[in-house]
Amino acid sequence: MDGAEFRRRGKEMIDYVADYLENIQERRVFPTVEPGYLHQLIPDHAPEEGEKWDDLFKDIERVIMPGVTHWNHPQFHAYFPSANSYPAMCADILCDAIGCLGFTWASSPACTELEVVMMDWLAKLLNLPEQFLSGGKGGGVIQGTASEATFVALLAARQKAIQDYRHNHPEIKNGEEVADKLVAYCSDNSHVSVERAGLLGRVKIVQLPADDKQSLRGDTLQEAINKDKSMGLIPCFVCATLGTTSSCAFDNIKELGPICEKEGIWMHVDAAYAGSAFICPEYRYLLDGVEHAMSFDFNPHKWLMVNFDCSAMWLKDSSYVVDAFNVDAAFLKTGGNDIKKTMPDFRHWQIPFGRRFRSLKLWFVLRLYGVRALQDIIRKQIALAHEFEGLVVKDGRFEIVAEVIMGLVCFRMKGPNEPNEKLLELINKNGRIHLVPGKIKSTYFIRFAVCAKSTESKDIAYAWSVIAELATRIISENKR
Amino acid sequence: MDGAEFRRRGKEMIDYVADYLENIQERRVFPTVEPGYLHQLIPDHAPEEGEKWDDLFKDIERVIMPGVTHWNHPQFHAYFPSANSYPAMCADILCDAIGCLGFTWASSPACTELEVVMMDWLAKLLNLPEQFLSGGKGGGVIQGTASEATFVALLAARQKAIQDYRHNHPEIKNGEEVADKLVAYCSDNSHVSVERAGLLGRVKIVQLPADDKQSLRGDTLQEAINKDKSMGLIPCFVCATLGTTSSCAFDNIKELGPICEKEGIWMHVDAAYAGSAFICPEYRYLLDGVEHAMSFDFNPHKWLMVNFDCSAMWLKDSSYVVDAFNVDAAFLKTGGNDIKKTMPDFRHWQIPFGRRFRSLKLWFVLRLYGVRALQDIIRKQIALAHEFEGLVVKDGRFEIVAEVIMGLVCFRMKGPNEPNEKLLELINKNGRIHLVPGKIKSTYFIRFAVCAKSTESKDIAYAWSVIAELATRIISENKR
Repeated sequence: MDGAEFRRRGKEMIDYVADYLENIQERRVFPTVEPGYLHQLIPDHAPEEGEKWDDLFKDIERVIMPGVTHWNHPQFHAYFPSANSYPAMCADILCDAIGCLGFTWASSPACTELEVVMMDWLAKLLNLPEQFLSGGKGGGVIQGTASEATFVALLAARQKAIQDYRHNHPEIKNGEEVADKLVAYCSDNSHVSVERAGLLGRVKIVQLPADDKQSLRGDTLQEAINKDKSMGLIPCFVCATLGTTSSCAFDNIKELGPICEKEGIWMHVDAAYAGSAFICPEYRYLLDGVEHAMSFDFNPHKWLMVNFDCSAMWLKDSSYVVDAFNVDAAFLKTGGNDIKKTMPDFRHWQIPFGRRFRSLKLWFVLRLYGVRALQDIIRKQIALAHEFEGLVVKDGRFEIVAEVIMGLVCFRMKGPNEPNEKLLELINKNGRIHLVPGKIKSTYFIRFAVCAKSTESKDIAYAWSVIAELATRIISENKR
Repeated sequence: MDGAEFRRRGKEMIDYVADYLENIQERRVFPTVEPGYLHQLIPDHAPEEGEKWDDLFKDIERVIMPGVTHWNHPQFHAYFPSANSYPAMCADILCDAIGCLGFTWASSPACTELEVVMMDWLAKLLNLPEQFLSGGKGGGVIQGTASEATFVALLAARQKAIQDYRHNHPEIKNGEEVADKLVAYCSDNSHVSVERAGLLGRVKIVQLPADDKQSLRGDTLQEAINKDKSMGLIPCFVCATLGTTSSCAFDNIKELGPICEKEGIWMHVDAAYAGSAFICPEYRYLLDGVEHAMSFDFNPHKWLMVNFDCSAMWLKDSSYVVDAFNVDAAFLKTGGNDIKKTMPDFRHWQIPFGRRFRSLKLWFVLRLYGVRALQDIIRKQIALAHEFEGLVVKDGRFEIVAEVIMGLVCFRMKGPNEPNEKLLELINKNGRIHLVPGKIKSTYFIRFAVCAKSTESKDIAYAWSVIAELATRIISENKR
């Protein structure tokens, strides 16, 4: 494919995806294919000679679409939104064409520099404390996902804890002895990625019980710290979640923060989903306490119109991450030492080495939408969630499981879990809408998330009508 | 931006990037900007109201392009190629539009299933041993980068070693004791990501001396293993590189492999750059020995026309990775247990949780190019490297530092390092071509990589003329 053909085919693809997104509601939101469907539809090896574009293009509908779960469908209410916008898509075309890797400043200066500025723009939108802005010890960086951000924070906290301990105990010869004593905390409602970070980082993670609003409280944390310290362990890290995956609950960082600061523990605040809402002043109170955090992360690729991947992470002091990650080589020493003092070396702030020019997506989205429009989208989606909540409450067979604060409604049929499991299974099999479950302690429930940016009131009403209808079916089946 | 405007602007972007790539040689390959240039060109905060597309679009040239290192420029010969093709760019537009996250099969079946088939296609192209194909214990997965693949392999190896040791020593109560004894090996020419993997994974990495062809040999490894075992350590992992970053040297996996197998050590083969060449039968011999590997990785996003990111990793037995990574949650249990038996749960094979539909890029590239054309590109670039090598050799002031096998030529002016450091500095300052340095032990040299797919013989001749001219200048300056 040469440039001339790309101009033609690339534009065909633009029209195709625009058609796809404009007419997505005509498709079944959740596919009916069985595992293994795809390999039967295509050859088992690559072709020797290049094929025609038209044959490949036809196969998008024949091979791919039947197996797609349509995350941008107005009847998709599963997991959390995965952001998708035309400005971000345009930016990604540019990102691909430039195709630079930004592992050092010199490898493509604009890649590092736009990211620094975009992370400052975002920080100001969220009214983050100044310590997270560039120009001082801290700064922001784009990670691939919140789970990587949590892992990076844990690794930095581990580094800091070992350093601090050895500084205070010069008799310790070996960092390994210290490492084995480290312990980290999170709520028992935290995302699985926290547990995984501990598994991979070889730091013991203790899941502490959240309160009856699924929020991790200060006294619970302090008690755990006291107990562990008395046993000779070294608390080093707390992952506090603002907007948990299961029920969008908020750990109490106004209580947790000062405790962590006093105890010298690294608090990482994970606001993967809810963080985008903090661009609205009326929701910013939920972020109070972040001034005590050593690191903070949220995903513009969930709710801020920036296509995956784009997870925004800030550090109060990047030197801990850099120290944990810094291994350098000859071919990277292009450009001199001065650069390091003014510009971050982002490869030391992340797990991978190479990195794409993802800040272009932020730049396009923030400039073409503007703050006001982005706030409006958040507000509208939260309003839609409350509309759904209202419908749930009106139906006496159902109950709301957790306070609705953002775009997620957790609900269930009153009574035992089993009918709810059956209901969800029937909902997804029936295929008109798509939802996934959640669990708080032993209570099973169904999660309704407002996802596609095209979701309207009629979609809320429709979703509820489907749920109510299928619940009736489940209840009468049960009676028989 | 609505669908109608996206159809217009998206196509504008297609034309813009086609113009960019077709005329890239008119730009300066390496920018002249100073650190901090960008923030002076744009506001320090996001706009309240959305801006006009045309104003943003103008800023691509005003703000971004002056700071771009043009990786697709025919005079870009630094690092390694970062692959870029029109088919892959078309696929990425589709990937963005579908916007699904493939963390489970159910989250978008096509995302998992196309990846399984594409990894089998690729495995067959490279003639990988059957153990790496899907359908058995093993299989392939797309990682973001080779450095992540190395880290994943190390974590799996760590898991396996602890498991095996405890199985043989049931008296051991605590996996931590075992973990502290683990040791891993690589050559002293390995990519920094191996050292970093050890740092982050808390496994001691020992860099072993390569031979005079920068190749890690079996007897060196065996000696190190024997010594460490005698001290009570547990060798658990070897990262063997095929095509090192500094000089594209090849560790001797025909020797290393059987040793690792005998000693129960996990051998990971990292062929990040060179791996693409193994689709050519005449280079496949370099991969002999991979049948002894537990994991193998190479980057289609370097040399196989697939835009970043796309690192192809295969495992002989995925259960070790899954065991190291598996932490599950309620909302993921959609779809039942049967799926697990036939379809991989790719979130357990990687560091992050979410993942994009990257296999679309492989599908478009493999089908639209076909195997033959991809082989031709590799062969052409290697031939160009040999042309450059020929020019170096003809100039008596210069010497070749390492055997030229792939698309990388390592060369230097005969004599001390300093003139070479000055030469490279001058070359990059002069700005007509862009190169980066390498180092083998204490010998500094310059790396010339054939990168842009548009590189032709005239570009090789041009690059050499620039180098020769600037070398003359350096030499006469030295004489004064």
